[in-house]
Amino acid sequence: MTTPLLTEIDHVAIAVRDLEAAIAWYRVTFGADVAHREIVDHDGVEEALLVVADSFIQLVAATRDDSPVARYLERRGEGLHHVGYRVADCAAALQAVKDRGGRAIDEHPRPGSRGTTVAFVHPSAAFGTLIELVQE
Amino acid sequence: MTTPLLTEIDHVAIAVRDLEAAIAWYRVTFGADVAHREIVDHDGVEEALLVVADSFIQLVAATRDDSPVARYLERRGEGLHHVGYRVADCAAALQAVKDRGGRAIDEHPRPGSRGTTVAFVHPSAAFGTLIELVQE
Repeated sequence: MTTPLLTEIDHVAIAVRDLEAAIAWYRVTFGADVAHREIVDHDGVEEALLVVADSFIQLVAATRDDSPVARYLERRGEGLHHVGYRVADCAAALQAVKDRGGRAIDEHPRPGSRGTTVAFVHPSAAFGTLIELVQE
Repeated sequence: MTTPLLTEIDHVAIAVRDLEAAIAWYRVTFGADVAHREIVDHDGVEEALLVVADSFIQLVAATRDDSPVARYLERRGEGLHHVGYRVADCAAALQAVKDRGGRAIDEHPRPGSRGTTVAFVHPSAAFGTLIELVQE
């Protein structure tokens, strides 16, 4: 018997080249409004969060050529970049991942956007998926 | 003023080679249980849905070599494959996409897994993201 660590899909992150164009498309097509915008210097991105129920679509664009998102766009093009899961305790969730053979990108939780505490898990030991653990 | 068409992130779909191994990893790492399994002949996949609040992680593996997911795995490897958004009316949401320059893969809504009605939207006119519209 296990206790679910993931309490919500916090966001799906979509890497785009033109943030304004992407925001506009989601707004006029789906009526999805921007709840929050932020430049995250640590990650070299500007992000816009669009509300979908208790989750977000996170549109992310690179703010510098050497950011991971810029390299991702060059290598794979626009599209789904990572998934963020909301957790009650980021440190505990990160430890659970490490204990089960997962590979942490962030060895310890660190500040994310909109005041969250986050840690990224490497896709190489997570079936190809870049996972972000998000504690509000 | 627009009305939000997307009422929930229905699922994030993750293409994997070994469905049992992926299910086991999500269970032991995150305590995520399988709520539903189904072979979807139309799409050439077997899927397992893991519950996260009102959403799902959809693990998908190919059931035949010529399925789109098999080709995706060959071309891009394991990882995030598409995102499914829950909508009240799949036909109306699909029409909204078409009206705004989106490109439908399914010209009309069709049966999806677990008794849903679905339509896929092509990534080429949606910032690289394969989008599924899901009506329960």
